[in-house]
Amino acid sequence: MRIIIDAFGGDNAPDEIIKGCRLAADELHVQIVLTGDEKKIRAAAEKLNVNVSDFEIIDCPDVITMEDEPTAITRAKKQSSMAVGLRALAEGKGDAFASAGNSGALVVGATLLVKRIKGVKRVAFAPLMPKSEGFFMLADGGANNECRPEMLEQFGMMGSVYMQKVMGVQKPRIGLANVGTEPHKGGELQHAAFALLSENKDVHFIGNIEARDIPFDAADVVVCDGFTGNILLKMYEGVAMALMNKFKAVFKKSLKNKLAAAMVLNDMKAMKKELDYNEYGGAPILGCSKPIFKVHGSAKASTLKNAIALTVKYAESGIISEITAALQNEKTENTNE
Amino acid sequence: MRIIIDAFGGDNAPDEIIKGCRLAADELHVQIVLTGDEKKIRAAAEKLNVNVSDFEIIDCPDVITMEDEPTAITRAKKQSSMAVGLRALAEGKGDAFASAGNSGALVVGATLLVKRIKGVKRVAFAPLMPKSEGFFMLADGGANNECRPEMLEQFGMMGSVYMQKVMGVQKPRIGLANVGTEPHKGGELQHAAFALLSENKDVHFIGNIEARDIPFDAADVVVCDGFTGNILLKMYEGVAMALMNKFKAVFKKSLKNKLAAAMVLNDMKAMKKELDYNEYGGAPILGCSKPIFKVHGSAKASTLKNAIALTVKYAESGIISEITAALQNEKTENTNE
Repeated sequence: MRIIIDAFGGDNAPDEIIKGCRLAADELHVQIVLTGDEKKIRAAAEKLNVNVSDFEIIDCPDVITMEDEPTAITRAKKQSSMAVGLRALAEGKGDAFASAGNSGALVVGATLLVKRIKGVKRVAFAPLMPKSEGFFMLADGGANNECRPEMLEQFGMMGSVYMQKVMGVQKPRIGLANVGTEPHKGGELQHAAFALLSENKDVHFIGNIEARDIPFDAADVVVCDGFTGNILLKMYEGVAMALMNKFKAVFKKSLKNKLAAAMVLNDMKAMKKELDYNEYGGAPILGCSKPIFKVHGSAKASTLKNAIALTVKYAESGIISEITAALQNEKTENTNE
Repeated sequence: MRIIIDAFGGDNAPDEIIKGCRLAADELHVQIVLTGDEKKIRAAAEKLNVNVSDFEIIDCPDVITMEDEPTAITRAKKQSSMAVGLRALAEGKGDAFASAGNSGALVVGATLLVKRIKGVKRVAFAPLMPKSEGFFMLADGGANNECRPEMLEQFGMMGSVYMQKVMGVQKPRIGLANVGTEPHKGGELQHAAFALLSENKDVHFIGNIEARDIPFDAADVVVCDGFTGNILLKMYEGVAMALMNKFKAVFKKSLKNKLAAAMVLNDMKAMKKELDYNEYGGAPILGCSKPIFKVHGSAKASTLKNAIALTVKYAESGIISEITAALQNEKTENTNE
């Protein structure tokens, strides 16, 4: 399996990317294809004393930054490591692509340079986030601010396939993020999406779920429009960070408290790690015709390696053909009606 | 000042309501008007040994439950303690109304039985929530699933007046909840609301804010549609609860950890109290022609007393005439244009 990696995506590029790719090549036995300024990659590798002799490097001069507009990927930043990587994927120079760079640009590039699966209305940015036990998928986590009900239905179906095939959840429970659990709750979008998901035989739809229950075990896939998804994702991060700060302040308040902190330090660290979805590596872009994985921007080498492992699983699992088939079936059913 | 209180609203009614009203009457020197089944109120007061001889009681047989549809307030549950209290407010039998009951019904009742301020398009349910220091107001926190841009502008203006007059914030910062800070972020609703808020001279609009920053000190009033507000509010609750559970589990894990927990117990309790917005009492209904305050459903006597203190402040502050004047000015300006 050949995995194309954006060498200049994320806060710790290219050093941690190069190190992470080495780990992946050694431990996962994948062929690495790096995109980016070859001179800089080779210089960094030499400085880090990392062997990159077995990596293929596709040389390109530019980088998409976090400040760039997503659409730059097809315009001013056509020669960026991300754009070149996506085109290489489209051309079959690798089996999957992963980047820790600008999420918006990755979503636009996935749609315009690699293209959607036939019948998919919109790709979803679908991060995995911690719940009381394990993880849930948020679809859409922010790719599409405004959605039609059919898009939400597809997010549910695609998320279900992913959770089953990559995360090993037997019968993923698909929930619709809403302001109450009763079927009539929410606005027009939620009403129509509820009806579509209820009738879809490919998903195990469990109905509306409230935001309050999401961090517990409300569902395996939380379906919503991208605006709501972004709010959910960032509120999760914000509240968790704010609360952690409050706890830290308590632990630093007095000598006695510092002593108490030292006593629980290891268990606290383990708990924090469990909650830290950065540890989990990132988010697949669902609905694209080839596997694309968004790695968390702050990823270090080991996180990148985990993300590459998930990217490999995404590519090997046959998710894309399963989604294609499900959409084909649905089309046939609708035509027969 | 006469405050009308729904004796049968909330999880702990009527006992904690009666006790809280006694505290309020004694400490805040307000006249209490209770609505609800008089026999039951008197029986509960006797059992609790609480003197209610100076309370006025408006006898009515029914109660709106949490399961009732909000619209029941003008239909099947016309004789409920909430409906009767709202009508009493409309008829001038008191200066303000507070209830710990069904929020949806309270919003519908505020609009249909008490009526909006002339020019207000929708009332907002506007809870106060903790941030890194102090509190912010969420407007709308869930009264209106679908909003037009002008409604969001009004929520910002009304929230600004409230934060200034009741909470003593000098120049409240009004932020628009969005998926990024740049002006072009979000969907049509956010674009149009951004433009309106930017031009409004009555508010100190600081632009878009991301959900990640809300629990920190991003703004004093967070403006959004009610669907987004409900998601923000409940995600806040859910993540905080989930994280607290994780911490509790760590503290119970071993004898050593239990000892550490005992050492920080008081400081943890103080921190938790700081975060607990139930302590703060509740949410004003903004835009109604008379002051209505939603008390948290789980309120006990002391929380109810705090909520009554805020209700008094709401009634005394002249907020409603200030909002009326601001809308009048705006109308004149628009006519002159």
